Amino acid sequence: MNEFDFIRRLREQTRSRQQSSRLSVGIGDDAAVIRQYSDRDFVLTTDLLVEGIDFHPQTTPPQLLGHKALAVSMSDIAAMGARPRWALASVGFANDVWDSNFKDDFFAGYLGLADRYGVTLAGGDVSAAPQIVIDSILVGEVTTGRAVLRSTARPGDQIFVTGSLGGAAAGLKLIELGARMGSERGRSPTVREGNGSQQEADGRRQEDSDDHSIQALLLRQLSPQPRVGWGIVLGEEHLATSMIDISDGLSSDLHHLCAESNVGATIDAALLPLDEHAVQLCGRRALDPLALALHGGEDFELLFTVAPENVSRLPKFVDGVPISHIGEIGNAAGSVRVSEQSRVWELAPQGFEHFGHNRL
Amino acid sequence: MNEFDFIRRLREQTRSRQQSSRLSVGIGDDAAVIRQYSDRDFVLTTDLLVEGIDFHPQTTPPQLLGHKALAVSMSDIAAMGARPRWALASVGFANDVWDSNFKDDFFAGYLGLADRYGVTLAGGDVSAAPQIVIDSILVGEVTTGRAVLRSTARPGDQIFVTGSLGGAAAGLKLIELGARMGSERGRSPTVREGNGSQQEADGRRQEDSDDHSIQALLLRQLSPQPRVGWGIVLGEEHLATSMIDISDGLSSDLHHLCAESNVGATIDAALLPLDEHAVQLCGRRALDPLALALHGGEDFELLFTVAPENVSRLPKFVDGVPISHIGEIGNAAGSVRVSEQSRVWELAPQGFEHFGHNRL
Repeated sequence: MNEFDFIRRLREQTRSRQQSSRLSVGIGDDAAVIRQYSDRDFVLTTDLLVEGIDFHPQTTPPQLLGHKALAVSMSDIAAMGARPRWALASVGFANDVWDSNFKDDFFAGYLGLADRYGVTLAGGDVSAAPQIVIDSILVGEVTTGRAVLRSTARPGDQIFVTGSLGGAAAGLKLIELGARMGSERGRSPTVREGNGSQQEADGRRQEDSDDHSIQALLLRQLSPQPRVGWGIVLGEEHLATSMIDISDGLSSDLHHLCAESNVGATIDAALLPLDEHAVQLCGRRALDPLALALHGGEDFELLFTVAPENVSRLPKFVDGVPISHIGEIGNAAGSVRVSEQSRVWELAPQGFEHFGHNRL
Repeated sequence: MNEFDFIRRLREQTRSRQQSSRLSVGIGDDAAVIRQYSDRDFVLTTDLLVEGIDFHPQTTPPQLLGHKALAVSMSDIAAMGARPRWALASVGFANDVWDSNFKDDFFAGYLGLADRYGVTLAGGDVSAAPQIVIDSILVGEVTTGRAVLRSTARPGDQIFVTGSLGGAAAGLKLIELGARMGSERGRSPTVREGNGSQQEADGRRQEDSDDHSIQALLLRQLSPQPRVGWGIVLGEEHLATSMIDISDGLSSDLHHLCAESNVGATIDAALLPLDEHAVQLCGRRALDPLALALHGGEDFELLFTVAPENVSRLPKFVDGVPISHIGEIGNAAGSVRVSEQSRVWELAPQGFEHFGHNRL
C-alpha cells in the first residue's frame, strides 16, 4: 500500500465519523473546516513526539504510541476545561517504518481513543523522516469564557488532583530496567526456580502480584488515560479556579501553576494519591512511591484548584476516576511547600530547567 | 538563554499582537483559546518540515526557514479562500542548534511573515530532537460556507494560476548545483577573468544578469510568497469554484483537483506563466522552463477555476500579483491534457506517486 492509498483509506475511515461532527471539510483538501457556534470558544493544542526523545520504538508498541500521541493532547484540552472535538495528525516515518505494519497499528490506537471521546480526525500531513516524528494537534471547545487557565488560582483555594500519581514514572523506570508489555523480561529467570516448599509458593504469589503491578505500571507509562470527563465537568460547571495537567511531574507543574497565578502552595505528603502498584513494588525494585508522585512526569492527571465554597459541589467520581484533596494555595508567590508529618520543606521543581519538552 | 527564557521571550513578543486578535488565551497555558463569531468557519492546516527531507540547513538560512514554515501553511489557508489568523509552532531542535542563533533567526523569519498578514502565534511545543523538525499549524477563518474546495470544479470552468510557475524548482536545481544566497558559489571563479575586450564586457553583463536571476530563483525556493490576498478575494467574493495551491507541481496538483472534482482539464502550454528568471537562464544552466512550470513543486501559487460568467469579475492584480488564464475544465474525469502548438498530449502527474510529503 502506498502513501496515497493509505491516506485514501484513512479518509474513508474518518468520513462516517465526520458526518456527526460539525466538520464541513475533513481529510482531502488543503485544510479542515469547522463550523462554529457563537457561544463557544475554540481551544487549540499541539504536542510533538520525537523518536529517541519522547519514546523508543523498541519499548513502545505502535498501537499504544498512537493512543499516547492523541492522549497527551486530550490531556491538554481537558486541562483547559474543554471538550476535545477535532484532531490533525502530522507524521514523519522512514521508508522501512512506512512499509511495516507500524502506521496501521499506530492509527488503530489513535482512532480507537478518538472514537472513545467523539474526536474526529480532520486532516494532517505525512512526510518522510529519518526517524519517527509525530505532531498531534487537537481542537476542543468550551462555553465562551469557561476555559480554565493556569493563571487564576487564588490564595485559599483548595488543591486537588485526579486519579493517582507516580505510576507513569514507575513504568518508565521498569522499562529502563528491561520490563516489557505482556512479559516481565527484566526479572531474572532464576527467580521462578524451586521445588514446591511453602516459602517458594509464597514467593510465587508475591511474584504474580508483582507481575500484575508491573504490567499496570507499564500501561500507565505507555497508555495514559486522559481525564477528559473531569476536564469537561470542571470547566462547564465552573468548579475549578485554575487547572494544569501533570505532564512534567507534580513539583514542576504545581510550580508552573503558582508562577502563572502569582501565588504559592502547601501540599500534604500524606494526602498524595500514591500509585497503588508503585506502592506494591516499593523497596523491592528501587521505586520510591512518594518521590515518583512528587517528581514523576507523564501521569496526565489534572491538577486543579477550587474555591473553598465550591469544594462541596465537587463530584466524588467522574468516569470512575476519583479525586484527592492535596493542599491549599497560599500568598507566598512561587513558594511550594510540602508538609510531611512534623516537617515542612520547600519543594524544588525537579526537571523544571531540563531541556527536553516544553509547551509554548 | 535556556528553553524557558526563550519561551518567555517569545510569549512577550506575541502578547502585544494578541490584544488586537480574538485570541483570549495565547502562549503559556495548556492550549490556546480563540473566541468565535457565529458567521465564520474556522479553517485548520498543518505542515511538517523535516531536516534532510524538506530542507537542508547548509543551504537554508534559518530566517528563511522560519518564513517558509509559516508560508507553506499560509498557502494552504489561501487555497481554501480563507484569511490566516492564528498559528501554533511545534519545533524540535538538537542541543547544538538550540545553543546557536538558529532559533532566534528562525522565529525572526516566522514572526516577520506572521506580522505582515496579521497572524498571531498562539502556542506550540518545543522538544529536543536528533535533527530539526518543525510542524507549522495555522488556523484561518472564512465567511460560513465560502471555503473554496478542491472538489467543486465543473466542466466549462476556466482554469487560472496566480503569479508564475517553475521558479522554486529552478531555485532548488541551482542549490543542488552549488548556488547559495548572497553569492553565486556554484559558478566557476575563472569565468570573471579577462582583460577588457568588448566580448568580455558583454560576457560580464550577461553574468551580472544571470547572478540577478539566480538570486531571484533561490528566493523563490527558500522564501516563497503565499498568495494570501488572492485567497481572500477568491473566497470572500465567491469567484473561484475550486482551488488548490501548487506545492507538488502543476501536473500533480491539477490531477489532485480533477480527481477530487471528478472532471478533466486541458491547459495550453503557450499560456503558462513561465518564471522569467528561469527563462533568462534557459539552456545555459540545464533549466527547461516549461518542464519546471509543469512539474516543479513549491511555487505556492494558487490554481483555481472560475465559472465562465464570472471571469470578467476577476481583478487583474491583487497585492501586485497577476493571474494567468491557462485552460479549461472538461468532462473526461481524471484526464489532464496539454495543447502545445499543434500537438495535444496527456500530462502525467509527475511526482504524484513519490513518497515524500503529502497532506491527509
